[in-house]
Amino acid sequence: MNKSLLHTPEGVRDIYGTEYEKKSEIEAKLHDNIRLFGYEDIQTPTFEFFDVFSKEIGTTPSRELYKFFDKDGNTLVLRPDFTPSIARCAAKYFCEENKPLRFCYAGNTFTNTSNLQGKLKECTQMGAELIGDGSVEADAEIVSLVIKSLLGTGLQRFQVSIGEVEYFKGLCEEAGLDEETEMDLRACISGKNYFAAQELLSERNVVEPYRSRLLKVADMFGNMCSLSEAKAMVNNSRSLAAIERLETLYEVLKAYGVAEYISFDLGMLSKYKYYTGVIFKAYTYGVGEAIVKGGRYDRLLHQFGKEAPAIGFCMIIDSIMEALARQKVTIPVKEPVTYLTYNRQNYTEILASATALRKSGRAVALVREE
Amino acid sequence: MNKSLLHTPEGVRDIYGTEYEKKSEIEAKLHDNIRLFGYEDIQTPTFEFFDVFSKEIGTTPSRELYKFFDKDGNTLVLRPDFTPSIARCAAKYFCEENKPLRFCYAGNTFTNTSNLQGKLKECTQMGAELIGDGSVEADAEIVSLVIKSLLGTGLQRFQVSIGEVEYFKGLCEEAGLDEETEMDLRACISGKNYFAAQELLSERNVVEPYRSRLLKVADMFGNMCSLSEAKAMVNNSRSLAAIERLETLYEVLKAYGVAEYISFDLGMLSKYKYYTGVIFKAYTYGVGEAIVKGGRYDRLLHQFGKEAPAIGFCMIIDSIMEALARQKVTIPVKEPVTYLTYNRQNYTEILASATALRKSGRAVALVREE
Repeated sequence: MNKSLLHTPEGVRDIYGTEYEKKSEIEAKLHDNIRLFGYEDIQTPTFEFFDVFSKEIGTTPSRELYKFFDKDGNTLVLRPDFTPSIARCAAKYFCEENKPLRFCYAGNTFTNTSNLQGKLKECTQMGAELIGDGSVEADAEIVSLVIKSLLGTGLQRFQVSIGEVEYFKGLCEEAGLDEETEMDLRACISGKNYFAAQELLSERNVVEPYRSRLLKVADMFGNMCSLSEAKAMVNNSRSLAAIERLETLYEVLKAYGVAEYISFDLGMLSKYKYYTGVIFKAYTYGVGEAIVKGGRYDRLLHQFGKEAPAIGFCMIIDSIMEALARQKVTIPVKEPVTYLTYNRQNYTEILASATALRKSGRAVALVREE
Repeated sequence: MNKSLLHTPEGVRDIYGTEYEKKSEIEAKLHDNIRLFGYEDIQTPTFEFFDVFSKEIGTTPSRELYKFFDKDGNTLVLRPDFTPSIARCAAKYFCEENKPLRFCYAGNTFTNTSNLQGKLKECTQMGAELIGDGSVEADAEIVSLVIKSLLGTGLQRFQVSIGEVEYFKGLCEEAGLDEETEMDLRACISGKNYFAAQELLSERNVVEPYRSRLLKVADMFGNMCSLSEAKAMVNNSRSLAAIERLETLYEVLKAYGVAEYISFDLGMLSKYKYYTGVIFKAYTYGVGEAIVKGGRYDRLLHQFGKEAPAIGFCMIIDSIMEALARQKVTIPVKEPVTYLTYNRQNYTEILASATALRKSGRAVALVREE
């Protein structure tokens, strides 16, 4: 026997026993909660044509996509995330619909990262997309749905950090930055690399007070206080509108009763080009990466031929499971299987007992006497 | 906008709305039933190393596998079916376990067929594997689990056709057929191509009474009567043991109360090399292909280093959905979403009503007044 037959590729894994039972239970809870907000399930194919996840649209660099061919030579891609697929569906099946559309998805996503990064390459995600509603109430619905879903799993210590990409864009405009500098600075700030940002701004001769203000963005991480601070720092209508949006959002989140889970971070810019307004990430004690990511993507649907604003989020189930385990949250599991032993003589009788127990909802397995 | 962005690759599709709701409902029913028989859920990766689905082990020719590479140049394959992955897990995590193992899986499988065949390339399957139990009671458990699962969906008119590959092998041995002729004949009979079988047997000079007997196998399709007929036709212990196994199996299936759904077909040989004994397929009115396939594969686990007999089945969910639709079986769907309209003035009030309704289990969505 070839021992290597037992191995799975790096970054993917088998899940079974209690671990899988708990994962299913958490998925069901998250799903029930999303359903209560009127979101309808949708299932898209595991792979799509390359173009759906191309550079213009997507979130994942081409080198991190799993690519292969069909028999006609088309390039196919294992989905690295769901949002472009859901946008495609909304445009394809609901092009003429003007009322808001609410979709919920669940499934696995795939990124072909290098083994050195030690990341999961197949990852279970669940999420929701609210399409055709550009209001702040829609922002609040999505953010509070994230919070209520996480609370529903039993998770306690978490924070949803909210940013607004327009704030930074307005500030760059005000400072007269060229597009390249803006993109480079964005990368530094996204990577929380303060020193690189400092160096970049000197190198490109960005003048004061803009140099200090732009650097300050990298540091803005806190609560409502910093929103007023951020407001005081800008003179352009774009940035001011962004702050006002966040202030109103905070008011609506208070009505939802979830304000205590919120903080603001105007340095959150996201590497995903498709986000256009509010963006957010949920973090929790014990897991380094965000467990939920989301934001507004008002121009993505346009790529598929439908004019509609949209906002959504995706929960990384594997990370949520890790957080629940670290925080020692008890997840109910089903009653264990009842084993009934039989021999050739009493088989029919034991089978009848098993059938009766199964009818009452009990999981029963038969085992032959040794 | 590039209109082709809206297309999905041929053979894969989006599912949403009532169609998806019904699919989820049926999956849940099938899953509940499998769970009641003591099967525990397991989830394996969507892709594995090529070797797990290689010619020696697998069910799908290499040209029909979706193959691609990871960053280290390993060949990966989207799973064309689940059984080899479950066998790998059983060997990897339960190598020393002597008690029977019961696993249930659900997910999508992928076959890279030509578009001309018009088949689904991504297909939802659910199945169960009983590993480490070579008894006829295990055969009966698996077959009756199939029947009870199908009945649980509301499907009425279906038949489970059962064969035994050893019967044919014994007959070939008795007739003195070489391996090549046996394989060729198997292909003709599997394809229900009577004339090709006739031609082959003439060409290879197979003598009477074997020529007629082997041809008869292609025609054997019916009920218990044909089992005794099949028995009368052979003189070798291998074929006789196969018939006796089926006779005993039929007795146990009577104890399960499912005998009326059974027929026997000794011409069912399956193209899958890994089946070693009892094999079966469930057919129903309105769908050409089998909706469930399964059988005994007592040598597969050996390939992964564990000595254990095994039997299992896989249900093709997409085909079961098609059958239910054709037979006009009603599938319950959830209460539709309640829409509450709000304006700027009454938002907080409407939000409170929505929250209350959601607490009572009702799905509620908010819509802004036009």
